[in-house]
Amino acid sequence: MSASEVLRLDGHVVDSLVLAKVLDLVVDSGATYRILEMEIGTTRRDPSHVRIEVTASSEESLEALFASLHVHGANREDAADALLVPAERDGVLPEGFYATTNLPTRVRLGGRWTSVESPEMDCAVVVEPDSEGAAASARTVPMHRVRRGDMVVVGSGGVRVDRPTPRGCGAGAGAGNDEDEDEDGDEGELGSLTGGGSFGFMTSDVSSEKPKALSVERVAGALRSARSRRERRSGRQEDRSPGGGADRGADRGADRVLVVAGPAVVHTGAAPALAGLVRDGWVQVLFAGNGFATHDVESAVLGTSLGVPLAGGRPAEHGHANHLRVINELRRYGSIEAAVQAGWLASGVLYECVKAGVPFVLAGSIRDDGPIPDVVTDTLQAADAMREQVAGVGVAIMLASTLHAIATGNLLPAGVETFCVDINQAVVTKLADRGSHQAMGIVTDVGLFVSELAAAVGALPVPSPT
Amino acid sequence: MSASEVLRLDGHVVDSLVLAKVLDLVVDSGATYRILEMEIGTTRRDPSHVRIEVTASSEESLEALFASLHVHGANREDAADALLVPAERDGVLPEGFYATTNLPTRVRLGGRWTSVESPEMDCAVVVEPDSEGAAASARTVPMHRVRRGDMVVVGSGGVRVDRPTPRGCGAGAGAGNDEDEDEDGDEGELGSLTGGGSFGFMTSDVSSEKPKALSVERVAGALRSARSRRERRSGRQEDRSPGGGADRGADRGADRVLVVAGPAVVHTGAAPALAGLVRDGWVQVLFAGNGFATHDVESAVLGTSLGVPLAGGRPAEHGHANHLRVINELRRYGSIEAAVQAGWLASGVLYECVKAGVPFVLAGSIRDDGPIPDVVTDTLQAADAMREQVAGVGVAIMLASTLHAIATGNLLPAGVETFCVDINQAVVTKLADRGSHQAMGIVTDVGLFVSELAAAVGALPVPSPT
Amino acid sequence: MSASEVLRLDGHVVDSLVLAKVLDLVVDSGATYRILEMEIGTTRRDPSHVRIEVTASSEESLEALFASLHVHGANREDAADALLVPAERDGVLPEGFYATTNLPTRVRLGGRWTSVESPEMDCAVVVEPDSEGAAASARTVPMHRVRRGDMVVVGSGGVRVDRPTPRGCGAGAGAGNDEDEDEDGDEGELGSLTGGGSFGFMTSDVSSEKPKALSVERVAGALRSARSRRERRSGRQEDRSPGGGADRGADRGADRVLVVAGPAVVHTGAAPALAGLVRDGWVQVLFAGNGFATHDVESAVLGTSLGVPLAGGRPAEHGHANHLRVINELRRYGSIEAAVQAGWLASGVLYECVKAGVPFVLAGSIRDDGPIPDVVTDTLQAADAMREQVAGVGVAIMLASTLHAIATGNLLPAGVETFCVDINQAVVTKLADRGSHQAMGIVTDVGLFVSELAAAVGALPVPSPT
Amino acid sequence: MSASEVLRLDGHVVDSLVLAKVLDLVVDSGATYRILEMEIGTTRRDPSHVRIEVTASSEESLEALFASLHVHGANREDAADALLVPAERDGVLPEGFYATTNLPTRVRLGGRWTSVESPEMDCAVVVEPDSEGAAASARTVPMHRVRRGDMVVVGSGGVRVDRPTPRGCGAGAGAGNDEDEDEDGDEGELGSLTGGGSFGFMTSDVSSEKPKALSVERVAGALRSARSRRERRSGRQEDRSPGGGADRGADRGADRVLVVAGPAVVHTGAAPALAGLVRDGWVQVLFAGNGFATHDVESAVLGTSLGVPLAGGRPAEHGHANHLRVINELRRYGSIEAAVQAGWLASGVLYECVKAGVPFVLAGSIRDDGPIPDVVTDTLQAADAMREQVAGVGVAIMLASTLHAIATGNLLPAGVETFCVDINQAVVTKLADRGSHQAMGIVTDVGLFVSELAAAVGALPVPSPT
Repeated sequence: MSASEVLRLDGHVVDSLVLAKVLDLVVDSGATYRILEMEIGTTRRDPSHVRIEVTASSEESLEALFASLHVHGANREDAADALLVPAERDGVLPEGFYATTNLPTRVRLGGRWTSVESPEMDCAVVVEPDSEGAAASARTVPMHRVRRGDMVVVGSGGVRVDRPTPRGCGAGAGAGNDEDEDEDGDEGELGSLTGGGSFGFMTSDVSSEKPKALSVERVAGALRSARSRRERRSGRQEDRSPGGGADRGADRGADRVLVVAGPAVVHTGAAPALAGLVRDGWVQVLFAGNGFATHDVESAVLGTSLGVPLAGGRPAEHGHANHLRVINELRRYGSIEAAVQAGWLASGVLYECVKAGVPFVLAGSIRDDGPIPDVVTDTLQAADAMREQVAGVGVAIMLASTLHAIATGNLLPAGVETFCVDINQAVVTKLADRGSHQAMGIVTDVGLFVSELAAAVGALPVPSPT
Repeated sequence: MSASEVLRLDGHVVDSLVLAKVLDLVVDSGATYRILEMEIGTTRRDPSHVRIEVTASSEESLEALFASLHVHGANREDAADALLVPAERDGVLPEGFYATTNLPTRVRLGGRWTSVESPEMDCAVVVEPDSEGAAASARTVPMHRVRRGDMVVVGSGGVRVDRPTPRGCGAGAGAGNDEDEDEDGDEGELGSLTGGGSFGFMTSDVSSEKPKALSVERVAGALRSARSRRERRSGRQEDRSPGGGADRGADRGADRVLVVAGPAVVHTGAAPALAGLVRDGWVQVLFAGNGFATHDVESAVLGTSLGVPLAGGRPAEHGHANHLRVINELRRYGSIEAAVQAGWLASGVLYECVKAGVPFVLAGSIRDDGPIPDVVTDTLQAADAMREQVAGVGVAIMLASTLHAIATGNLLPAGVETFCVDINQAVVTKLADRGSHQAMGIVTDVGLFVSELAAAVGALPVPSPT
Repeated sequence: MSASEVLRLDGHVVDSLVLAKVLDLVVDSGATYRILEMEIGTTRRDPSHVRIEVTASSEESLEALFASLHVHGANREDAADALLVPAERDGVLPEGFYATTNLPTRVRLGGRWTSVESPEMDCAVVVEPDSEGAAASARTVPMHRVRRGDMVVVGSGGVRVDRPTPRGCGAGAGAGNDEDEDEDGDEGELGSLTGGGSFGFMTSDVSSEKPKALSVERVAGALRSARSRRERRSGRQEDRSPGGGADRGADRGADRVLVVAGPAVVHTGAAPALAGLVRDGWVQVLFAGNGFATHDVESAVLGTSLGVPLAGGRPAEHGHANHLRVINELRRYGSIEAAVQAGWLASGVLYECVKAGVPFVLAGSIRDDGPIPDVVTDTLQAADAMREQVAGVGVAIMLASTLHAIATGNLLPAGVETFCVDINQAVVTKLADRGSHQAMGIVTDVGLFVSELAAAVGALPVPSPT
Repeated sequence: MSASEVLRLDGHVVDSLVLAKVLDLVVDSGATYRILEMEIGTTRRDPSHVRIEVTASSEESLEALFASLHVHGANREDAADALLVPAERDGVLPEGFYATTNLPTRVRLGGRWTSVESPEMDCAVVVEPDSEGAAASARTVPMHRVRRGDMVVVGSGGVRVDRPTPRGCGAGAGAGNDEDEDEDGDEGELGSLTGGGSFGFMTSDVSSEKPKALSVERVAGALRSARSRRERRSGRQEDRSPGGGADRGADRGADRVLVVAGPAVVHTGAAPALAGLVRDGWVQVLFAGNGFATHDVESAVLGTSLGVPLAGGRPAEHGHANHLRVINELRRYGSIEAAVQAGWLASGVLYECVKAGVPFVLAGSIRDDGPIPDVVTDTLQAADAMREQVAGVGVAIMLASTLHAIATGNLLPAGVETFCVDINQAVVTKLADRGSHQAMGIVTDVGLFVSELAAAVGALPVPSPT
């Protein structure tokens, strides 16, 4: 019941990323492809020609896929005439109408190709057939302007979309400005500023407008997958323990989960959920700074974060100096672990780390008050301490942290599955700009996200006793 | 067991908002006040003097409150000498140490007041007593620099903080620049750009760094409170129905809940939760645009939002044209209600509105595709339709909407409890700038927020059957 | 020609900030006030009554001022009847029409006060007079709905606006919910989350929607003012040098200008302008980190910033490793100063600092590559080094820096005039939240801002020779 | 003097965008390429092999280019041994050291390839040679940890970087987890959320951290280019006018410049500069809304924008109702043109439009006050009016407008060079997400940007007389 058809791509399809994008869409749709022919331009000025056989599970899937490929200038090789259906009513289009892109488009009627006037996206194409069955004219029509009896193109058969010329090859105002070529050439150098060609929409990878339950599930899946790798490995190790196994590949241990946490994790009320994740074994190592540690302890001991009560109590009872008192006490105890042993610190993320033997690195920064005694104040030493803990990390989750997230991103091998959760889109962009390309950005509220994540893997929050 | 003490405020305490802020903090802390004396400057140049008796539930509460009031230059009237305690150890301060502000500060020792050198916030004050028991010198010391034996001020007794001169009265580089007064006068005109004096920290009202569970609970509380008002009113109406009570004032019915929803509600996966809130009677009227309506129906009928599958399926099956097909179908049916009657639309927020008889206004905008037939394309008519539905609204919740939120904010009386939920802080600022001062801004992810809100009031999400 | 009139404020005017705001507006408008009477409620439940005589330069000014004070519930004491003028034409209001707020409003006609129905902001008030000349009814009417002959209120005479009840005193859905008082009381505790009453609009202090030329001029003014204070002081010191002046107050030297610069200063192309400001004596001390320093040198030596050419050349020639090569060279030289002496570093901000003898502190952070030898890697030592340079600073300008800006803000006394320039509104909010209330936030593009600032004070940019 | 060398790409180079990116970098660097061999995998599971000859202007350029290509796993075909140079000093690397990526890396020594331990970006590679001259071990070393005598790899010869496996083909924790393949397969469906492979860094296309003078120059270049096309066309038309020219290609007139302006253009003080651009013929058509128009007229007539004085005067003189008075006056005149004819409106952007005969479309929205009479309140009619003006537009500049920018973006053909200038990165992302992929996003302050743009093309600002 599967359906196949051949599509063609012509022009600057390699260096403009179009080929890559098209193959991507084919695979994402669940279809498969086979490249039948590929003439790649040997230099930049030479166009390429590619023929790809696409196989989908049904005619409907194939049709839907081809519709989405039109945006990228990928057309059916085997062009029949376009199918025309009259509108039955003013302002309503026939079912299955062809929805336009904003690219130059042609329709085939009576074996002849006619350009569609006024390219505009999300419109229908209305054709005025001439006496010989070809199109006298074709134009885009917004839905509300279609009139009863208008002949509307249905399906993507007989429709061709021409890809925009890639930037640097005469981009901009397009054809007809040959004389500008030389001037325009300079613009090409600025290309990296633009979203030219079909580049641009990838910026949407980092957007707050995504289904959030999916993002939660995605991270939860990474946590579960890392856990099952850890369990398998520890199983194998036991099996082999007598003889000792030699094959300890570099990736052998890429199953530890690293969490990098900023103070907003505490401010937004996510500390109990993170504490639950630590206690239940979902986190193998924690990186943070003096701020996170202080507020984690402050919220555990006093129930406030930067003096703001997390449970809705009265703000003024405990003043802005809460965090200083907490730091001072920790300095008296000498370390977080000592404060736990003494029973003074009895809940919170760091408490759970101490209890579960999860190592943590607290790196110093110039804005630190105190700092608490576990903080490594020399930044080179702190980075070195982080380096040592990075070995074997397979999943890294950055939570509302800029400085520590970027510092950690710099230390991680490219293979580490990395999630950067922040309410500020700019932070995620920055992380990517600094070279951590593998990071998946999740623009959301860390306070709610971590709670949902803990729930998704079944870790119970550990509320403070206060 | 309650404790009282008198505090004084001197200087420009009225026009600088300091008095207001101090009374605010007193009340927020659970203490009470009584104004004993108030000499208000009759003109702007005249300083004021205020004496306020503050009563708190315990000595500890009072001490904590006075510590927090220091920031604003409110000092104990009854000044004893400061209490000095030696540090027992390098880098550790005595318990209860006085934590500094960044304001000019004096300490009293041997009955004499000495200025603290180098004002800096979050430090301790170390005093070098002279032979007569007064302070030879006093200076701020960061925690890590304190040395064993240093005499550290403990508690806020004997400490005075001087309020910064208000802007326009010689603000800026402060004392000593009398000659600049005239020039500086001009700067006063720009005052509204600054956060001068102690204004600035109110900007933190709109921040993403807040405990999110509290924000959820706050809105849930407003929903519950409106519901109980509705129930009481309907109870009263039944009681009176025989005799009929003539129509009671404008506020009588300020118990309806208005939701203004942007398309991101659907994109982020919050539509089922919102549908649940509508179905269970938590929402009395809905304002939205063509985008929200389209994607709500798209997700109900096709399981996608702008072509992105909400349940994690394959993106390409349904292309970018999904929303156009949905609009076209609705145009064929003639209205959302007709599509519900015909059984074509069987879930989603608008479906629940139709089922529950919750009125909705869909207002048009120039970026609309289609639009769907219920959209009021004339903006004046749309605003008038919204005006009619605003009567009796007591709670308004704006969800990820800029245009509709501001438009609605313009229509609401000041008494309406308004929540503006958006991931973008700028939207909330904009709403406030346009005059809707009563709005509480919640900077968070609407996708997660609405789900938690529905859970908080016990409304079950209504997932799409797809 | 000046005009005076008495206004009254009733209710919770002190703790709701209303009195402060009203006096603020009076002063900002150029008018003066005299408080005639002030009965302040001794406890929180008691209302206050204030009578203030306001004097403006003309009747028109006074009228305009009173119109703006209406928003805050400040009304003329001396109420005459409202002035009614018929609309001459459909959809056009009479000149000088009263523009409504969203607060409860009454109009006086025939000596009787009538409530205006459906409070809505930015409308006119149309009155239906009864037979006795009083108002049978009054309602808000949006401009497009006024009809020829409608009797429209003109001016603010005879109009009263009632302030909204402050939060915690029955805020929310307003009148009629006496039974809710106790429940609602709890909400008061969350007050700091809200922008209740007329608080909220101060958040607009930090907005990108401000006239930018004014912001530039404001900072330029601070630079000029600090310079003239420096010059006067140095003049005085010369005068006195023989006898030696003893009285050198704390503020004596609060005339140094501190710049805190983040790497984006270089990335956005602002380094030449900042170099010009340093060279021409507008900056006395610089705080930055390894990133700023590296990119400043990278742009000076190689013409790129993080490998991106600042002058529009080709990106690929110099790869992502440019900054590493620059750091390595500086490490070879041993210090920035040595690199300047050797002639290897011959332009840029740090070059100008070395040449002009402007001290700089480069503080380390965990994300640093290298670092360059001048960076203080121990964060406590770095903060201490910054502390020493803070003495005598009167103006601080934070440019596109979060970490260093907050760290510096923590060290500065409250009197220092502080400007925080960043394209990200959240950074400014964060700075204020951490206690630096005196900061004026300027949400703008640092790349363009610094260039305009340099131009405003007449400092020529110093372009790199590359 | 040019230099050539062959590079190889192996693996999933097409569907992972790697090939495209590599060719892009080659071209951007000024080098040229010739594809020697291209075996493309016919299905998704089959790897590809590509050999490309790259020619650069010099050995140095070629070396720099190859260094930058390493990031993408493009290696020299012709591998010699790596060059080792001993560090002369602790903490200082030899000149030309190889700077690492975070990808799996190998070095060749004695003809044998050795994996580099602990991949980490921005480090050097230190090799421990064995007795036979091959590498016993190779590891990344951060600069500060290199010790005198360490053997450091210099140049990119003899270094190979392996591309990360593309997502969906075993991404995530990498090798060794074959058993996970099936589970991981599901994750591929979520791929579009990630920046997997080397995708991610393209998000940096929209960032505030770009040299701003270049962005200004880029837009100025587009304006100049459009102008010269207009002039050439009008020249040609004159030449041909007798005979009449038939060739009216689609692109013939793609030389008009469209500006879409939001109210922040006025609020930030950019109106005079935009007025100058209109007056001097740089703008052929303007789209805006009631807000922009109102504030443009308000600032021209009263010198304020939303009541805030643009020249720094006193805010309170003119209240919040200023814009209402302006709208009311325009309604009295009947149209903007009538107000210009009557001499009431004598400056500003719209004034210049009327004077220069530049058409404008003012589209209505539900938040409009008034509106002014030129506003098209029906959104379908407004969009149709915009459609008519879109013909012949070759350059579109969106200034601080979300609604109108997206609406316009929907109407424009893909070939139109589009710039979206906004201080909010999210707006630009949104525009791209809605399909306007050709837009170049410029994250900056519109107030300063437009002034610099006007200066760059030599248009003098037209200040208001007020």
